[in-house]
Amino acid sequence: MKKYRYKLNISYDGFNYQGWQKQPYKKTIQEEIEKNLNKICGNENLSIEASGRTDAGVHAKCQVAHFDINNSLNTSSVKKSLNCLLKDDIRIISLVKVSSNFHSRFDTKSKEYRYFINNAKILSPHIRHFRHHESRPLNIQEMQKAANFFIGEHDFASFYVNPGYKINNTVREIFEFDVNKSNSSDIIIKVCGNGFLYKMVRSFAGFLIDVGLGRFDSNYSYELLNNLKRSKDVKTAPANGLFLWKVNY
Amino acid sequence: MKKYRYKLNISYDGFNYQGWQKQPYKKTIQEEIEKNLNKICGNENLSIEASGRTDAGVHAKCQVAHFDINNSLNTSSVKKSLNCLLKDDIRIISLVKVSSNFHSRFDTKSKEYRYFINNAKILSPHIRHFRHHESRPLNIQEMQKAANFFIGEHDFASFYVNPGYKINNTVREIFEFDVNKSNSSDIIIKVCGNGFLYKMVRSFAGFLIDVGLGRFDSNYSYELLNNLKRSKDVKTAPANGLFLWKVNY
Repeated sequence: MKKYRYKLNISYDGFNYQGWQKQPYKKTIQEEIEKNLNKICGNENLSIEASGRTDAGVHAKCQVAHFDINNSLNTSSVKKSLNCLLKDDIRIISLVKVSSNFHSRFDTKSKEYRYFINNAKILSPHIRHFRHHESRPLNIQEMQKAANFFIGEHDFASFYVNPGYKINNTVREIFEFDVNKSNSSDIIIKVCGNGFLYKMVRSFAGFLIDVGLGRFDSNYSYELLNNLKRSKDVKTAPANGLFLWKVNY
Repeated sequence: MKKYRYKLNISYDGFNYQGWQKQPYKKTIQEEIEKNLNKICGNENLSIEASGRTDAGVHAKCQVAHFDINNSLNTSSVKKSLNCLLKDDIRIISLVKVSSNFHSRFDTKSKEYRYFINNAKILSPHIRHFRHHESRPLNIQEMQKAANFFIGEHDFASFYVNPGYKINNTVREIFEFDVNKSNSSDIIIKVCGNGFLYKMVRSFAGFLIDVGLGRFDSNYSYELLNNLKRSKDVKTAPANGLFLWKVNY
């Protein structure tokens, strides 16, 4: 057992990566950080554990991770070195020593995701990597009504994708679910919950876009939820609109 | 002489391009648009003329250009086709028929440029292509004081770079020059004038950053301006912070 535990706050542009989690022959955020952290810390074979995975192409405003190491670190200098070695699409926002009781995944109280839909006629080149573009008008009031059915504790079996590994159950609690228009042409879906299933936020987003377009009535979200089974009416919205926004402990 | 004249409003991310102007063996915005416009319009050997060049790596929120063609166009369908063929780092915002008296360069009344400096400790990966990063504190009041000396008609020989081709004179008029902090960590330099010399806005920005850092007193801009000669104290700020914002006719 290593002696010291450190916590990282990490921001990234997921565009060039196959997601957070290390996988053979794939470029991932976890591997980039581990590789460079090991260079700096003298190859202790460090491995970092995040609050959760993010999928290929998904961004993070603030992902949280921790790692253990035998030597005490000069956090300010290690943070600087890491940011020098990493490409500029991954930034270490902070590096702090934490108690060895802290766990980035198990101690999570809630997580906030935001899904950005740009609703302008033409998507500006300057935000294209960070927005899903929908040029047709969206009815935000209807989207919010549909989203309200998701608030609270529910079995979200209808709004996730089977990840291919065993999961204990599909019950999660959603604390907040807001659909708002920004002062630019963005529609921002903000969802906060105690945990999220595989592709759950993108399934919410995909369905809410269809509600916004008038394809489905907002009450249909209640019906789908109670089906407890994924329907072809629930589509997964593209990765590039999604940000892991905040992890609360 | 071709019969019809059309005006384009164009937005681009300059990151992957060697600037606006067509050059042999280089990837430029002008060439990308001309190439695809010619595909759509049946190889009339169309050439487009912009309000002015932008340098390698410089962005445009709204560049204006025009071209002449023998056939009348269905503007809505040509615009759509162009946006389909172009990569998503260039977008045609609008395409409209104009009088053949209109000229995108000669008719310009004023142009607005904006230079974005991100003044956060760590540059967010999500805006890195569109901000110059300066993590040290900048004194915006001093920057504004220095900028005020540029307002009005002056010979800006001290604040440009010789482009390698003959220019008539270095007198230009600046109508507005504002340095403001945004509600994020950006400092935005907004400058509007009747015309700009080669690398003039980036020279302003480079010098103002040094004033903001306390390297130079704000009054020094008056002295430099009157020198009528480029000094080593005037640096050219990086291209990625600069946007051609608006062209007024």
